Amino acid sequence: MSTSDTRPHAAQPGYAFDLDTAVTRIADGAYTATVTDRWAALGGMPNGGYLLGICIEALRGDLPAPDPLAVSGFFLRAAEPGPAELRTKIVHAGRRHSTGIVTLTQREREIVRVVATFTDLARTEGRTLMLNEPPDLPPPESCVDPLGGNAFPGISITERVEYRMREAPGWLSGALSGDPRAEFWMRFKDGRPIDTIPLVALVDAAAPVVVELGEGSSTIELSVHVRARPSPSPWVACRASTRHVIGGYHEEDFEIWDGDGNLVAQSRQLAILPH
Amino acid sequence: MSTSDTRPHAAQPGYAFDLDTAVTRIADGAYTATVTDRWAALGGMPNGGYLLGICIEALRGDLPAPDPLAVSGFFLRAAEPGPAELRTKIVHAGRRHSTGIVTLTQREREIVRVVATFTDLARTEGRTLMLNEPPDLPPPESCVDPLGGNAFPGISITERVEYRMREAPGWLSGALSGDPRAEFWMRFKDGRPIDTIPLVALVDAAAPVVVELGEGSSTIELSVHVRARPSPSPWVACRASTRHVIGGYHEEDFEIWDGDGNLVAQSRQLAILPH
Repeated sequence: MSTSDTRPHAAQPGYAFDLDTAVTRIADGAYTATVTDRWAALGGMPNGGYLLGICIEALRGDLPAPDPLAVSGFFLRAAEPGPAELRTKIVHAGRRHSTGIVTLTQREREIVRVVATFTDLARTEGRTLMLNEPPDLPPPESCVDPLGGNAFPGISITERVEYRMREAPGWLSGALSGDPRAEFWMRFKDGRPIDTIPLVALVDAAAPVVVELGEGSSTIELSVHVRARPSPSPWVACRASTRHVIGGYHEEDFEIWDGDGNLVAQSRQLAILPH
Repeated sequence: MSTSDTRPHAAQPGYAFDLDTAVTRIADGAYTATVTDRWAALGGMPNGGYLLGICIEALRGDLPAPDPLAVSGFFLRAAEPGPAELRTKIVHAGRRHSTGIVTLTQREREIVRVVATFTDLARTEGRTLMLNEPPDLPPPESCVDPLGGNAFPGISITERVEYRMREAPGWLSGALSGDPRAEFWMRFKDGRPIDTIPLVALVDAAAPVVVELGEGSSTIELSVHVRARPSPSPWVACRASTRHVIGGYHEEDFEIWDGDGNLVAQSRQLAILPH
């Protein structure tokens, strides 16, 4: 197996995701990074998936396996654009799975705490059985851009990520659908290829589906399971749904399918409606 | 609000779950416990949910809020019956949410690493909207005991937890259904009331639904979201499903609904088929 097979995620120089998640190693298990203002989500704060991307960028260099397999991030405080410090620690390096922790700190306050298990998804073996289908979407070029080319000042993630939907969603035209489910295409606006590293960020890169209930959302915990390496197509098909809003808390389930119709990532987050 | 409202989870003396998850504080953030052989699952090893129960028992005394809200456990190595050490650390104590970590170690090898956010689920406020229904099951007394009163030597969790199903599942009668979904009732055999603490264990207390594919399963990561305090009924209704088995890995989604038909816990685990 060639080096490129076992470590396929060399930085993709010049792409926004790689520039903005870059970390600088200052000592064993210690990194610095800059949280940019270029991935601000609804609400204006740095997107949680983007922060997870920085964390995974710090951790992946320490672990022998190339692909994040299971990642859980706890969001303790709101991040802000500016410098950040990261600390990593390997807690188990097994033959097949390696697990580490990483924390992202700003001004000596812990912002995100992540535990992640990595593996080599090029070496999986064993059974495959699917009881689910990819989103039923026309090709991206036959879909509409829900943002309609508009600028959304302060929501800078819309300058980094593009979306395509069967039709424009209710909440963006001022008529809430009341249905917290969505299917859509997504890609990096600069065409960055999607490998297993950015999947960890992209599961959180769309507006929360509770916007169709007139609500915002703030992530408490986000678990991502990366299920396969994506095919090269820059577009991925996404399915998001919330089925239970209880006492102001809700889950959001998110699936990402590659251009060949394979499930490549699955996530669930527990989030809270602001009030 | 009375003390019993804000900390409703006083130990329930004499019940197996409480006896077998008990911890002894030996210093700030340091506990000892005994992993018993009384919660062995298919495969004969201590059940992952049981281990999570010990971890949460250690952590909950350190945190100001009574209810686990979001719990993520990474299972690094197989546990074995015998002594264990636990280390806890508070990473953020907020007004509403408190987050801590806990590790369970045996023979100086880390077995489980957990991050958990606690809150007070008696004080939730905000919207409720349900787009899902509880399992459609006859009352427990009209269901069958899938184990048929048989003993399963070595699978001692079947002596702690009882199940009731509409009909006996295929895998137990030697005819695999091929359908990795199940709905059933569950309760502690000794009648222990179900509050938010054991929910964290019960999401992992049934056979994995991939048994209907003729497979076993070994948990890598388990995320539990506790959504509400259960009503007093000892029986809870459960729904488990696996939709994607890919290259030997699979997720299992699990819901627990209380006797009043309210969703009280939701979990997802990533697991691997042994081979």
